[in-house]
Amino acid sequence: MNAEKIPDIIIGRLPIYLRALQRMAERGVQVTSSKELGEQVDISAAQIRKDISQFGEFGKQGMGYNVAFLIEKLREILKVDRVWDVVVVGAGDIGHAVARYQGFTDRGFRIVAIFDNDPEKIGKKAGNFVIQDVAHMGEYIRREGIKIAMIAVPASAAQEVANELVEAGVKAILNYAPINISVPEGVHVQYIDPVTHLQRMTYYL
Amino acid sequence: MNAEKIPDIIIGRLPIYLRALQRMAERGVQVTSSKELGEQVDISAAQIRKDISQFGEFGKQGMGYNVAFLIEKLREILKVDRVWDVVVVGAGDIGHAVARYQGFTDRGFRIVAIFDNDPEKIGKKAGNFVIQDVAHMGEYIRREGIKIAMIAVPASAAQEVANELVEAGVKAILNYAPINISVPEGVHVQYIDPVTHLQRMTYYL
Repeated sequence: MNAEKIPDIIIGRLPIYLRALQRMAERGVQVTSSKELGEQVDISAAQIRKDISQFGEFGKQGMGYNVAFLIEKLREILKVDRVWDVVVVGAGDIGHAVARYQGFTDRGFRIVAIFDNDPEKIGKKAGNFVIQDVAHMGEYIRREGIKIAMIAVPASAAQEVANELVEAGVKAILNYAPINISVPEGVHVQYIDPVTHLQRMTYYL
Repeated sequence: MNAEKIPDIIIGRLPIYLRALQRMAERGVQVTSSKELGEQVDISAAQIRKDISQFGEFGKQGMGYNVAFLIEKLREILKVDRVWDVVVVGAGDIGHAVARYQGFTDRGFRIVAIFDNDPEKIGKKAGNFVIQDVAHMGEYIRREGIKIAMIAVPASAAQEVANELVEAGVKAILNYAPINISVPEGVHVQYIDPVTHLQRMTYYL
């Protein structure tokens, strides 16, 4: 692997490539080209070749990429050749949807617990999980060595929850609350907010 | 406004700025700086000034930005100074969560209908909406002149749904299904897939 720091924008495209390659593998495709992959993900073939070459020589000139091999390499690079435990904070509609979502496991993640502060919700089920009291969240995260959390609480509570998560040792947060949160250096945050995606498209309408 | 084409990556940051500015306005902040805004959204002050200056002179040198004015301008630029009607396809967990989500209206969007193909779901409620038969979706979209849709169906059905939406006149699709979809030139797609966000972070862990 290249010793220099690889731009985050390239890292951001790798999961898109991986997802498309896994779809190809499911369809029985064994060899692909940067052109074919590019058409799947709407990114130029040249960009794909450039991105992938940052990490080594994974295809032979004129021979294309072996799909299974490239999947394996991308999973290694993205560190999803293992399964990461993830906690969910907030047992509202989104928290429930996430807790019941079947699409994590074969892509490197496993929900292990869901927390809320609402006495009406604590002890009830969300998917296969019993909703736990958020008061015990920090202890749980420390004990289990959890590094990844999803925040699905109202915007007004998101920063406080993020602080607790970080203090307990979480290093990566997927934030569904529609608000930017501050975290220390070395902690990563990604955002899911449907409205920002919609607004990005209305510009063009 | 600058007559030249503005890079999509800049357009993609505007909703983030708008969201942060609206939070400031809620807190009663009347004037901000590119530095303060930058700290909120974790983007450099220089980048913010450059992005915003693409669209005109919205701040006075050394005086900062008037928050209400900049919100108004960004809403105009992003065309969310109006309310867009949006249909949801798929009444699973995500479709239900979206149909019940209260955060669209004051940011430029309004869910107007939800469709599914499951006879068990059609006629039941999702939030305040009666789930409609997807067989009537195209007709509904044409009649109401809907331009925006969210896809929340299984990956295997997403492309077919997208084709129907596009044929009926939809120009912007927010796709929750974990698969890339192909659309004709002039139709916009954005993706929400928690796993791609998570994988982008595990790289750094």
